[in-house]
Amino acid sequence: MSAASLLFSCSMHVGVSHPKVAAKPSPCCLLNQPWNHLKSKTPFGHSGVFEKSKLSHKGDEILWRAGALQVESAPSFSMGQKFHLHDVIEAQQFDRETLNAIFEVARSMESIESKSSRSQMLKGYLMATLFYEPSTRTRLSFESAMKRLGGDVLTTENAREFSSAAKGETLEDTIRTVEGYTDIIVMRHFESGAAKRAATTASIPVINAGDGPGQHPTQALLDVYTIEREIGKLDGIRVGLVGDLANGRTVRSLAYLLAKYQDVKIYFVSPNVVKMKDDIKDYLTSKGVEWEESADLLEVASKCDVVYQTRIQKERFREKIELYEEARGKYIVNQDVLDAMQKHAVVMHPLPRLDEITVEVDRDPRAAYFRQAKNGLYIRMALLKVLLLGW
Amino acid sequence: MSAASLLFSCSMHVGVSHPKVAAKPSPCCLLNQPWNHLKSKTPFGHSGVFEKSKLSHKGDEILWRAGALQVESAPSFSMGQKFHLHDVIEAQQFDRETLNAIFEVARSMESIESKSSRSQMLKGYLMATLFYEPSTRTRLSFESAMKRLGGDVLTTENAREFSSAAKGETLEDTIRTVEGYTDIIVMRHFESGAAKRAATTASIPVINAGDGPGQHPTQALLDVYTIEREIGKLDGIRVGLVGDLANGRTVRSLAYLLAKYQDVKIYFVSPNVVKMKDDIKDYLTSKGVEWEESADLLEVASKCDVVYQTRIQKERFREKIELYEEARGKYIVNQDVLDAMQKHAVVMHPLPRLDEITVEVDRDPRAAYFRQAKNGLYIRMALLKVLLLGW
Amino acid sequence: MSAASLLFSCSMHVGVSHPKVAAKPSPCCLLNQPWNHLKSKTPFGHSGVFEKSKLSHKGDEILWRAGALQVESAPSFSMGQKFHLHDVIEAQQFDRETLNAIFEVARSMESIESKSSRSQMLKGYLMATLFYEPSTRTRLSFESAMKRLGGDVLTTENAREFSSAAKGETLEDTIRTVEGYTDIIVMRHFESGAAKRAATTASIPVINAGDGPGQHPTQALLDVYTIEREIGKLDGIRVGLVGDLANGRTVRSLAYLLAKYQDVKIYFVSPNVVKMKDDIKDYLTSKGVEWEESADLLEVASKCDVVYQTRIQKERFREKIELYEEARGKYIVNQDVLDAMQKHAVVMHPLPRLDEITVEVDRDPRAAYFRQAKNGLYIRMALLKVLLLGW
Repeated sequence: MSAASLLFSCSMHVGVSHPKVAAKPSPCCLLNQPWNHLKSKTPFGHSGVFEKSKLSHKGDEILWRAGALQVESAPSFSMGQKFHLHDVIEAQQFDRETLNAIFEVARSMESIESKSSRSQMLKGYLMATLFYEPSTRTRLSFESAMKRLGGDVLTTENAREFSSAAKGETLEDTIRTVEGYTDIIVMRHFESGAAKRAATTASIPVINAGDGPGQHPTQALLDVYTIEREIGKLDGIRVGLVGDLANGRTVRSLAYLLAKYQDVKIYFVSPNVVKMKDDIKDYLTSKGVEWEESADLLEVASKCDVVYQTRIQKERFREKIELYEEARGKYIVNQDVLDAMQKHAVVMHPLPRLDEITVEVDRDPRAAYFRQAKNGLYIRMALLKVLLLGW
Repeated sequence: MSAASLLFSCSMHVGVSHPKVAAKPSPCCLLNQPWNHLKSKTPFGHSGVFEKSKLSHKGDEILWRAGALQVESAPSFSMGQKFHLHDVIEAQQFDRETLNAIFEVARSMESIESKSSRSQMLKGYLMATLFYEPSTRTRLSFESAMKRLGGDVLTTENAREFSSAAKGETLEDTIRTVEGYTDIIVMRHFESGAAKRAATTASIPVINAGDGPGQHPTQALLDVYTIEREIGKLDGIRVGLVGDLANGRTVRSLAYLLAKYQDVKIYFVSPNVVKMKDDIKDYLTSKGVEWEESADLLEVASKCDVVYQTRIQKERFREKIELYEEARGKYIVNQDVLDAMQKHAVVMHPLPRLDEITVEVDRDPRAAYFRQAKNGLYIRMALLKVLLLGW
Repeated sequence: MSAASLLFSCSMHVGVSHPKVAAKPSPCCLLNQPWNHLKSKTPFGHSGVFEKSKLSHKGDEILWRAGALQVESAPSFSMGQKFHLHDVIEAQQFDRETLNAIFEVARSMESIESKSSRSQMLKGYLMATLFYEPSTRTRLSFESAMKRLGGDVLTTENAREFSSAAKGETLEDTIRTVEGYTDIIVMRHFESGAAKRAATTASIPVINAGDGPGQHPTQALLDVYTIEREIGKLDGIRVGLVGDLANGRTVRSLAYLLAKYQDVKIYFVSPNVVKMKDDIKDYLTSKGVEWEESADLLEVASKCDVVYQTRIQKERFREKIELYEEARGKYIVNQDVLDAMQKHAVVMHPLPRLDEITVEVDRDPRAAYFRQAKNGLYIRMALLKVLLLGW
């Protein structure tokens, strides 16, 4: 492999053109560089130098494109700087290489977390959890991630008070104030697009912890990471998406991300009222991803590496409660499904679950959903590390 | 004396059979072992081996029974390992020896807390306060305890959101998720028995910080600890329990624990509508504890080492507000009561108080209730230390 | 200058006569002593020793007066102890010298905060934020200040639960409990005077983070600090106070503090319904501070060093909504105002703002309001340092 082949196009949403944490040199910046192994692959002891990143606006999306690689006698450690992650706003911002790099950091976090003498990598750093609506599970996961790395946290679960109707402060003004108190903002908001607005305003990194019906990119990342950890690969996998495919942003994001891998096949198993929408189907087709709808959960289970079950979201049915009840009971992951599944396959679920996975399944080693929740910790540790210290 | 004869009988509620924190060796595990001083008393420099603890189920309760103690030539420092505390669920789980051991650790915490350079004993450990109903006082006490020992905290006061009616997650699923983010769970719940269910599920230690009308074991421990600190002994004490003896779980637990000591006498002084119930009276009688009901607070005060006043709980009287008003004013601890009390005796109260202790009493050195609140900190520090690092 | 001329009278409200943190010696107590520079000014290598402070009550105010300077062969570092700050309760407690000393510490905090390896000055110290009403902005600012100095925090935003109507605990009892868990209390309360009551009760320092319509002294301090940082001086400045001057405690406190400086001139620019009240005007007159009312914002802007805009508080108008709408639109700081202003002048605002400053102003370097919010962090860091470690 020649250095020149290390070309890539890294599409990411960034709100500002300057590196957000550039002013904060860290003693840890040489640790955990997932790209260090590339050094030895570069001939002649020198490495690639990338053209300065350029920002170009394309409609609603801002693309950060690295230019063509120019081989010079530069030190190879610059490989670790070939892209800089400013914010985490939406699943679409990550290409395959970025995903791989994040997963490599996440794996190193697993070993850090398991030790009793935990890391002090982020000592002296403060994270603000700016939650405009409560989400205890997501908040605790981020706060644990920050503290497991030695950082500290400013918590708020009633951030609406900042911008109360009575006082009427804009999100932008709130962000400009809060960024003075902290090093990174993790934001949950009720409005789609709020995270992007915050990132555009902030001079410090912003992580979207869910903005309304929009995005929840760290959930999407942990899902893909879990598949790789459980199955050992992402290319060539067979995934059954089960349950509420119309309303679940989780399965939609997952389908989107899986399209980045080779030879993936996706099965959709869902009640008629909550079928996967055409936009995702069309997208998969355009990317050459095979997909198929099925009404036979057992047959799909027998073919898949991953059975990804989801909760039927009662709140979407409103007064049509009989439709909900019908949909809810239709596809249950139980012992029969386990019996149909292959030995190496796993059951996943974004949680919380009701009875769409029976409790008996919990005892089977193929029940991966609590490991999946734990992987959320590693992914968030990795993102905090990368956003604050770089690769 | 053979090592094998070092059997003992330690009855405690444990939810799981494996040591919960065994996988987490700590560099601090040799500090603050209250049993270290016993080493020198052991001849021949070798030690005892304990029978593996055995779990036996008895209806709703799980008992951990070691066999009878057999004294042999074992080194006494193993005394410190004779029992392992997995969870703190209910006052009944503690026998006298366990109480003494906890109190000894609590005393060592007093000196740690008073220093400006505080302990880093629990550095790297995370505690989650999973409060399904708010209790600011209890939560702050636990969080202070954790932080005074160098640990950190994940806080939630709206844990109900985890298991909202809309989403319907079980407590067990919540615990399986949260245990991935933290090293110990302190839980407050609105349902009796919730702490036991959490402990059964969790692979990390659980402390019950109150579960509905059920248990609040750390309050019971701090009450007994306070009596020992203030009076200097527990055997042979005279305690007057005053106020709402029917509804107060505090006085009920205290009576229960006092029965573990020798030659204790308890006086009950309460309005007729909130008298101590027969179950506790019968229990005391069965344990050979003398008790007596009295309507004369001054006379009881003159005889007691401890006057334990409690608040009449208005919320229990509902529409019978005149009964409440009558009960409320009946037994007040004021200067007259102080005048009747002996010099060495003390006034205790679980707080908050209304006017059942007049403010004038605060100035008397025998007013022990704020010291009692402070002792809650030491007890909680001790429990966190023991559950996370062992004895 | 002889040492004997270093006399001063330091008027401060203190709730208790003993030094609150005297029992807690700190290894950091020799750092950041703003008075160290005085050493070289003291002849003969020795310095002043101050008479023991004496407390004298004067009506509602307690004055702490240092006695006459006695020159002895004492080491000059004792200069750093010439006054001790016990609590921060109200803007009036600070004289000019104390303000200067606090600002000097605040400036040193700016350089601490900007470093990635932050200070551990307050390591081992705990601050409780006891908020009886939520104020996320103020709380986050204090918590960031504490954590930037290596300290830790116990948070509560529902402190009302401590003293719920049902349970009825007094503020004093709550303080006596909480002071056992922490080293300093930052309190927000809905009742005027609550902070003073808390400070009188507590044996640890108390900072008032706003008590009802009463005081919010740290806001007043950060405003004066910002003027000094932005304009470079306080004597001789021209300040335009604009907007709601009747209800805004911010502008009232600011006018009060500015009266401590020489040759200050204040312009009041406000709709008729929310004019500055006579008490402040009379106070300024009594202190020889020139002031003037004006209806011409552009003219005032052209003369001032500081244009201090405030929000018209809708909640004060109640049903008279048409009066509110009229007042609200009357004086807007926009590009026209900027154009009228001098180059060195600045726009300030306590935030949150609605549209009384247009967004276009944000881009002008003279827009100082977000820097002002950031200065709140430095002032709070300084106060925490001084209250816990001394000067």
